[in-house]
Formats: sequence, C-alpha cells, structure tokens
Amino acid sequence: MLKSIAVLTSGGDSPGMNAATRAVVRTAVFEGVKVWGIYNGYQGMIEDDIHELTSRSVSDIIQRGGTFLGTARSDEFRTEAGRKKALANLKSHNIEGLVIIGGDGSLTGGALLSKLGGMPIVGLPGTIDNDVWGTDYTIGADTAVNTILDAINKLRDTASSHRRIIVIEVMGRKSGWLAMMSGIAGGAEYILVPEAKFNIDQMCQDLKKSYTSGRRYSIIVVAEGAGSGIEIGKQIGTKTGIDTRVSVLGHIQRGGSPSVEDRLKASILGERAALAVISGVSNVVFGFNSGKVVSIDLFDSVNNTKTLDPELVRLARVLA
Amino acid sequence: MLKSIAVLTSGGDSPGMNAATRAVVRTAVFEGVKVWGIYNGYQGMIEDDIHELTSRSVSDIIQRGGTFLGTARSDEFRTEAGRKKALANLKSHNIEGLVIIGGDGSLTGGALLSKLGGMPIVGLPGTIDNDVWGTDYTIGADTAVNTILDAINKLRDTASSHRRIIVIEVMGRKSGWLAMMSGIAGGAEYILVPEAKFNIDQMCQDLKKSYTSGRRYSIIVVAEGAGSGIEIGKQIGTKTGIDTRVSVLGHIQRGGSPSVEDRLKASILGERAALAVISGVSNVVFGFNSGKVVSIDLFDSVNNTKTLDPELVRLARVLA
Amino acid sequence: MLKSIAVLTSGGDSPGMNAATRAVVRTAVFEGVKVWGIYNGYQGMIEDDIHELTSRSVSDIIQRGGTFLGTARSDEFRTEAGRKKALANLKSHNIEGLVIIGGDGSLTGGALLSKLGGMPIVGLPGTIDNDVWGTDYTIGADTAVNTILDAINKLRDTASSHRRIIVIEVMGRKSGWLAMMSGIAGGAEYILVPEAKFNIDQMCQDLKKSYTSGRRYSIIVVAEGAGSGIEIGKQIGTKTGIDTRVSVLGHIQRGGSPSVEDRLKASILGERAALAVISGVSNVVFGFNSGKVVSIDLFDSVNNTKTLDPELVRLARVLA
Amino acid sequence: MLKSIAVLTSGGDSPGMNAATRAVVRTAVFEGVKVWGIYNGYQGMIEDDIHELTSRSVSDIIQRGGTFLGTARSDEFRTEAGRKKALANLKSHNIEGLVIIGGDGSLTGGALLSKLGGMPIVGLPGTIDNDVWGTDYTIGADTAVNTILDAINKLRDTASSHRRIIVIEVMGRKSGWLAMMSGIAGGAEYILVPEAKFNIDQMCQDLKKSYTSGRRYSIIVVAEGAGSGIEIGKQIGTKTGIDTRVSVLGHIQRGGSPSVEDRLKASILGERAALAVISGVSNVVFGFNSGKVVSIDLFDSVNNTKTLDPELVRLARVLA
Repeated sequence: MLKSIAVLTSGGDSPGMNAATRAVVRTAVFEGVKVWGIYNGYQGMIEDDIHELTSRSVSDIIQRGGTFLGTARSDEFRTEAGRKKALANLKSHNIEGLVIIGGDGSLTGGALLSKLGGMPIVGLPGTIDNDVWGTDYTIGADTAVNTILDAINKLRDTASSHRRIIVIEVMGRKSGWLAMMSGIAGGAEYILVPEAKFNIDQMCQDLKKSYTSGRRYSIIVVAEGAGSGIEIGKQIGTKTGIDTRVSVLGHIQRGGSPSVEDRLKASILGERAALAVISGVSNVVFGFNSGKVVSIDLFDSVNNTKTLDPELVRLARVLA
Repeated sequence: MLKSIAVLTSGGDSPGMNAATRAVVRTAVFEGVKVWGIYNGYQGMIEDDIHELTSRSVSDIIQRGGTFLGTARSDEFRTEAGRKKALANLKSHNIEGLVIIGGDGSLTGGALLSKLGGMPIVGLPGTIDNDVWGTDYTIGADTAVNTILDAINKLRDTASSHRRIIVIEVMGRKSGWLAMMSGIAGGAEYILVPEAKFNIDQMCQDLKKSYTSGRRYSIIVVAEGAGSGIEIGKQIGTKTGIDTRVSVLGHIQRGGSPSVEDRLKASILGERAALAVISGVSNVVFGFNSGKVVSIDLFDSVNNTKTLDPELVRLARVLA
Repeated sequence: MLKSIAVLTSGGDSPGMNAATRAVVRTAVFEGVKVWGIYNGYQGMIEDDIHELTSRSVSDIIQRGGTFLGTARSDEFRTEAGRKKALANLKSHNIEGLVIIGGDGSLTGGALLSKLGGMPIVGLPGTIDNDVWGTDYTIGADTAVNTILDAINKLRDTASSHRRIIVIEVMGRKSGWLAMMSGIAGGAEYILVPEAKFNIDQMCQDLKKSYTSGRRYSIIVVAEGAGSGIEIGKQIGTKTGIDTRVSVLGHIQRGGSPSVEDRLKASILGERAALAVISGVSNVVFGFNSGKVVSIDLFDSVNNTKTLDPELVRLARVLA
Repeated sequence: MLKSIAVLTSGGDSPGMNAATRAVVRTAVFEGVKVWGIYNGYQGMIEDDIHELTSRSVSDIIQRGGTFLGTARSDEFRTEAGRKKALANLKSHNIEGLVIIGGDGSLTGGALLSKLGGMPIVGLPGTIDNDVWGTDYTIGADTAVNTILDAINKLRDTASSHRRIIVIEVMGRKSGWLAMMSGIAGGAEYILVPEAKFNIDQMCQDLKKSYTSGRRYSIIVVAEGAGSGIEIGKQIGTKTGIDTRVSVLGHIQRGGSPSVEDRLKASILGERAALAVISGVSNVVFGFNSGKVVSIDLFDSVNNTKTLDPELVRLARVLA
C-alpha cells in the first residue's frame, strides 16, 4: 500500500472536477495516506507547483464549477525531458502514485508519463464532451448539457415570439454528444454534428418549405466540430431569406455548479481511483458503463475513439 | 395492431410527464394510430374527460413542468363500479389500448383496471420519488434532486455565514432516495430517511461536540417519511442549544423545467410504451435498468417494494 | 371614455411584455372596456390578425418569456399606405384606442400612426436595451442583465481554472447599458460600449502586463455596437499571446422568465397605459423615473436619444 | 481624514453584503486608508476577531451569497460593558471609523455604540426584508424576492396539474414586503402580511366558491409575521375541504448569488459609506430613495418604522 499520492486536473475544466478531487483527498486521508495537489496540470508538475492537501483543503468546494487545482497547457510536458522533470518533482516529495482527472488529451499525457515507469497512474474521465472511450459517462457532461438546455429554453421563449431561425453553437470538436443530447431534449429541428454529413442546401430548402406552411420558428444546434455557428447562420439566412440569429455559447458551457449526477458520480469515481492507486493498481481509467463503475485499460482508452450512440441519432429524427 | 390508444397521467405530477406524453402522442401519430388524452387522471376517465390529441397538441410542452393532461385523486376509481364506468368510457371512443404514466399508486390502479380485461395496458414510472420497483429510473426524479440541490446550495451560502444548523425537509414518504441523493451531492452532515433508524440524542451530542470543536455549520436533510422537519428542527435546537432553522421544500420539488435526463428518458419510454401498446403488449411497465430500457411485469412492479441502494448509504457515511 | 381598445407588442420581444399585456387586458376588462390583441405587431395590424381577448386569455402568461401576441417586422407599415390599411382594420373592429409595447423603433411606428389621427395612442417602453428616452426603466432590461450576469458567473468559474481571457458579446447596438450593468456587477476587467472609444492596443498591453504580474484571468464584456466579440477576441489573442475565448450570447438574452422587477413594473405600466388610453389620453409613453411612474411625450421620446449614465462609467473604473 | 477604518456585517446575512464589503475595502485601499474586517459581527468585535483586509481579500467574492465576514448573535454587546470592550478592541488596532452593514437590529447596535463616542460610525441597510426606515432599498431584497419568485414559478407548474391550494410561507416578521412583491409578481390569489388583518373564514369561503366555479388552483403567500404557513395551510384544508399543501422556504431566501441590482447598489453604497466615514462623517445610514443615494440620520432610521407602500397593497387587489 502506498504512503503518499498526488492528484491533478488537466485539460479543459469541467463541473464536478472539484467533487472528484475532494473524494480522492478524503479517501486518502481516511486511509491514512498523504495526499498532494498538483496545481495547474502538467505544467504545475514540471514547475513543482505541488502542495499537500488536507480534508479541510477540500471543504466548501463540491458546489463550485471549475477546478480549484487549476489547469494549464504545457508544451514542455509534450517532450520526454519535460515529463522526466515532472516525474522527478513527484519523487522529490516522495509521491508514489498519481490520479489524473481530465479528458482524452490529459489521459494521453498520463499514458506517456506511465511509460517512463516510476509510479502507478490512475485516470478519471473529466470532460464535458463525453468523448472518452470505454465509459458512457464523463465528469461534467450532465451539468454541461443542462446548461445548454437552459440556453435553448431561453431561445425558445424569444424564437416563438418571432418568425425566426435560431442557431446555437455548442462545444464538441470531434464529438456531437453535447449537441445531440441538448438538441433532442430542447426540441431542436436540426442537430449538426461532426460525425454526420449534412446537406445545408437541402436543409435550407426544407426550412423554407416549413416556414411557408406556417412554422413559426426553428432551433438548430451546431456542434463546433460541424462548423462555425456564425458561418452556418449566415448561409442559412442568405439561402432561406428567413431572419436568422446566432448564439455561440462558448465557455459558459464549462461553468456552473455541478448537477447531482456529476457530483455523485465524480465522488464515486474519486473514491475508486484513490483506493486503486493506493493499492498499487496502475494504468486504468475508472468510468461508468450501464450505470456501474468500470475500469478500462488506460492505453485502450486513449487509443480508441468513442462514437456517438446511433440510438440518439435515430431518436433525434423521430422526435423532431 | 391497434387503431386507437389513450394516455393519462396520474398521481403526483413529475417533471418530464409532458415529454413522455408528447412521445406517446407523436409515436402514435407517426404510426398512423389515433391517440386520445385522458384529462385529470382516473377521475377524468370516469367523467369522460377524454379528447383526441394531435402532433400539434403536444408542441411547446417538452420544456414545461407539471402535466398538461392534469391529474386528480379519484375515490370512485377505487371501486369496481368506478373502474367499469371508466373502461366503458374508453370503449365508447373505440379506444383499444392505454398508456398510464404515474407512480406506484397509479400503476396499481392500472393493474386493477387490467384485471377487468378489455384492453392492453402499459405503464410508465412517473414520480419524483424514484420508488417504482424494477426500474432504477423514474420520470422526474433527476429534475427533483437537482431542485433540492439548488435549495441546499442556497442554504449553504447563508449557513456558512452563521453558526447554525439548517434542517431541510424533502419529499419521500416511504423512500429516502431524494434525501439521500441530494444530501450526498449537497454535502449534508446527516441524512434522515424512513428506511433507517436514527438516534436523535446521539446525533445532537455529536453536533454539539463538533460545534464546540469549531464547526461552523451543518446541513441536515430529512425525508418526510423520517419525521417532520419542523419537529426534528425544534428537538435539535432544544437538545443542542444551537440556533436551528428549518426549510420545508414541499411541492417546489415537483416543479421546474425538466432536466435533459428526464426529457430524454421520458421521451424514450414514451416511444417504447406507445409502440408496445399499439402492438398489443399488455401488463408491462417500461423503465431503465443499468442505463438500458427494460420491461417489467406490471403486477410484479406494484407487488414489490423498491429498497434504497445500500451503496448510497455507505457513500453518505464516507463522504460526510 | 372609450369602449374598445387594442394592444400590440412590436420589435424585439422582451421578458415582461406578457405581464404588461396582461395588465392592459385585465384593467380594460375591469373597467368594462372591450380589449383586442393585435398579433405579430404592425404586420398583424395590416393583415387584420386581430382577436378579442378576455381575462382568461392572459392567465398563466405572467411567468413566460417572450410575448404571446408575437411580433414581426413590417416593411409595409413603413409606407403611409400600409399604415392607413392598418388603421382601417382597427376601425373595422370599432377599436378606438391603442396601446403599443415596444422599443424605440416600435414607438416611432406609433408616432407615425398617430400622425394619421383617428385614435388615441399610448406607448410602453418594452426592450431589453433600456435605451428609450425619458424613462430610466424599460420592460425586460432587469431580466436581461441578470441573464447576462448568470452567464458571466459561469464564465468566471471556468476562467479562474485557466490563465485565460474571456470575451463575452452582449446586445446593445447603440446603447452600452446592458454591457455596463452586467460588466460592473460581474466584475469584468473591461467593458466596451458604443458610447466610448477604446484603444485595443493599449488594452492589450495592459492585459499582458497584468498577466505577467500574476493575474489569472480577465473577463471582457463587449456590447455588439462596440464591435464583434469574435473579431475583438481574435485581435486580443493575437496581440497578447494569451489564450482568448469568446461567447456570443445572442438571443438568449431575450428569453427567460421575467424577474420580479420586470413583472411588477410592466404590470404597473400596463395598468396606467390602459387607464390613460381608455380616458382618451394620447401620444404619451409611460415609464419610470427615479422609481416613480412618469408620462413622456411620445414625439419627444422618439426624437431624443438616451445617453449612458456617466456615473456608471465612473463606477466601472473604480471597482475594476 | 481617517487613516484606518473597519467594516462588519451583522444580523441575518443577505446577498450583496459581500459586494458592499468589497466596495468598502477597495475604496479605502484606493484612498490609501487601512481597512480591517471584523469577523462574526459584534461578537467578533468583542472577541477581537479583527483582521486587516487587502484588495485581494475581497477578490472573487462579489458573486457569492452570504457574507465572508460571517455574522453572529451577541448577548454581550447588548450590555454597555460589552460595547466598551468592543470599542477598546477597535482602538487597540488604531481603527478610527466603522462601517456597519446590517438590518434594523444591527443598526440599533451601531447607534448604541455611537453613544459611547470614540469614532465615526456609518451604516448600510443589509437585509432581505427591506424594512429599514428612510431607504426604499436594502441590500439583498431584490435577490430574495427573485428567489421566492422562482419557488412560486415551480409551485405553479405543479399546482396547475392538480386541483389544489398551495401555501408558501416566506420571511418577514414585521414586514410583508417580500410576501407582497413576490406574491404580486407570482400571480398569487392571496397575500397575507403582518401589516393587514385578514379573515381566514371569509378567505376559505371565497376559495370554496371559486373552486366550485372551476378554478384549478390558488397560490397563497404568507409572510411569517402573519402566521405559520403550516398552521394556516391546515386551517384552509379543513375549512375548504380542498387538498392544501405547504412550503416553508426558510433560509433558502437568504442564499443565492446576488442579482445585478443587489451587486450594483451594494457596491455604490459601499463606496459612499467608505468615503463618508473616512472623511469623518458619522451617524448616517446610506440608502436609496427614488433611485438616488440618500443619507439618513442613523438615530432617525432606527427609531422609525417603515410601512408597506399602500400602492403595492392596491395593486395586489387589482391584478389578482
């Protein structure tokens, strides 16, 4: 059993990262294991921005969006020299194991670090994009879709007062999950995702037709990976002649107090990760599949790509 | 294949009932089947408050809390004469199948109706209490726990400014699910549920001790089935000598625009229920288990009692 | 005293328009005066989309965003022929007076209509932009600034986790009021408004300096009239070398359930407008100044331009 | 000009107290004046829980509910000996002036302290109850009424699904302001306030009559000073025979992120208070009247009682 572990958050922050960190810390403390927080992600690991945490360090954070540990980009960590320096810093504090909370890129960083050997590494999927392979849940995704839904609710109020097309661009460079979930729940007419081709000319013809036959308004959700909301909105406006307005939600989607699901699942995963790494388990990512905690091989997770559930795509068509 | 079906909501309303009704209606319309709405639950069935619905009848409702069909108590339906009258009304409209959306009591009503024969009956679990046997999800529960969490967030703001104990009474006559989920996610010190005995004297001693050693505030979540929040608050105040304040959330928990999960799962279940009843399936309840749609025997569902997940109880202790 | 009046909403919708319409209708009904709703603004007046309203027509709308009467652009109304046709439609229903709820452009439409004579016209300032001359309050502005503030709160969560600049573009083509109010309340570093010149190079130099000396993040609020948020964000990113992200709130700002202030003041103004027009008063706009209801000359209101309170500009500097 | 001032929050906390404290601190720092925070109200003043604050101490708090300075009851401060001790502590830190943020009781404490002489004292009205004489605005009231309105919105969703009477108890021991504002904005049928007698028998007769003639639901807002919501709900249920449910909002009303109005006005008042006390002004309370900052005599403010605006009472009747 290890005597000292560390935890970091990396990549884009997501609501629930604080709950996961809190559970890692409290579980370690409960088990009598020293626990360190690495601030500002891999860059902080390189710069030795590493501080011991106590139970009290993580009180009053479960309800906060973002991550109190901070997160940062690190070009240096992309080099082997950087990673060796980072590892040396951990060792200088007698840290014997590491929990990494982040998305695909951050877990890839963990996999590279793991190849250097030296200590057990356990990952948790922390990203609003819900695009980590091997788990159907990622920390923050539930809060983010509900934030988008709240925006769509507001757009609907105003859209229904006018004859207008409303385009909303949401996050998701490679994955249309956020767009699809919020679009179905929000009653969107069209949901444009990077995983599926769409014919904008056909869509505009259909829109014109439905407006001619009395439709009052349409909401179109665009994942950023499917194109720029601003650009697509301009094209639609030009091609249909219908007044078209665009919202680009941006980082608003990362904020907000985490939902029950994100707090609870993040807490459960944080406890699992801490217990696993303390007992020497390495190179696994903990996630949820079909509502149960699962452990996935870290290298499998980063080497595979999660695809959008085709049932969601089908449902979007039926309910629209 | 049936040519005409009806849908009703019954019992306490829950956010997402509208999404389920919408999916039942749109699926039926899509399949070319006539669909009727029964207003005000079983009482409306007896009073022939039954009207045909179209795709348009259910537009602009997915985002609304409550149920546009209404719901009501019906003493008459508890009698066989009442149920026969209700069934006769359905037949008078040539309705051949029925979808019932409601909690345990409402599904029991469905089971009694089913015993009279006459038409296929399919149930959906619509209740914020998440206490329907055979499904780990009920329509509205996710929205309700997040509403409670929002209240706890607000209580936390003010509690941390004072040295106070805050008691919040939440719904759950027989089930502590809402209390447990929101309490864990909200970082409550104690969570009192009907399923577990608690020693109020011991709790008060522990509270006094922790306040003496510097604790600033505690939040205690009480499921209504575990006792009256007002009464428990009074006792705690008297026994600890610490200023204790009580909130009784009441029906606020039933309101609010449904969450993504409730809209989506309600939509999926509504589609399933409609397809099933149209094809003549009867006496089943559709729900979710481990993230997948399941069908449960209607009589099994109403004759068994769902118990609280012991993992939740354990987690509450570890994270507190 | 008139026997029959009409009400319309026009221009961009704003939260509270429904509360104002409800108060107009209920006051008229209370006074025994017939009341008509003109749907879809001036265009509906031209197309005779005019229907009688009752007390019940406006129940259950006070909490809704948008306007149930709808609103639309009307090129035809810009012509005298169009306005004459519109007026003739009103007369064909024996409508003797008109309440117009809308922004600057809509009130200008009312002034043009008024020049044709024919009936008393009373205006209410309904716009989120708070840019109607003669009143320091417009219906919807309070809800809109709080919607923006909620977005800034969320951006702050995530911004504080990274070293980033966050730009948020808000509404306000000619007026920086929304940007200024939400920016001050949200603790923004810079607030760019159409009323004041700004030196982007200087700003970028200052930003670089403050990030070098340890600042973790900055939030910059841009009124659309001061430039495109996307463009300004790009420039800042390039000139500072600091990761810069942009949100464009768009029509989200028009939605949402109206705040207490917007419901209450809209109700008070609606009552005043109805009473005034019923008694034959014409060519006035009712608003609030220093917390008291005031009546402004309609032509003065549309011929003057409201300027930003310099105290707000000063406060923004002191508190940043 | 003073060289060192202190600030405290006292009594029930209210959203915006942090914004006011922040403005006091930043204004003092800007003016080159030392500024101290007194923690936990008058009790902290007695226990010398007094610490210097910097600009950074108040960063990242404007969006938080509650008060980071804390607040507490103090029996000792009610004695002259206690107040002398408190004053001596201030002097021991060379504090020369004091800003007190709180409600009626807290300002009365300030008046008593002032009678001992020794230093200038300036008050700010910080209470959700909006019951401080001489100002039509108090810090936190706008956020609180909107929190109540959100609860009423949710109750309305569910109430409209049933035939029910919903009672909601809100804060206000002596003042019905919160009940009246939220009740009017929320479309309540009855609003029971301590300032006005009501005949519960008459009300129940009217309720029965309106339900008999088809009314679906009623919302009744009760200020705590007008009676216990639970008790009133029981009586209504018994006397009308209509299903009646009760929510007791409690301290939820004190929480939540402050609204734009509360942040902005609290900031303006904080700046004014700091500038005044620094320049030696004493025994005034700053507030807002008709939208403009006013200064009220401290003794006048605590010796007079604010009464409910009769216009609100009238409006409640017209719009119900």
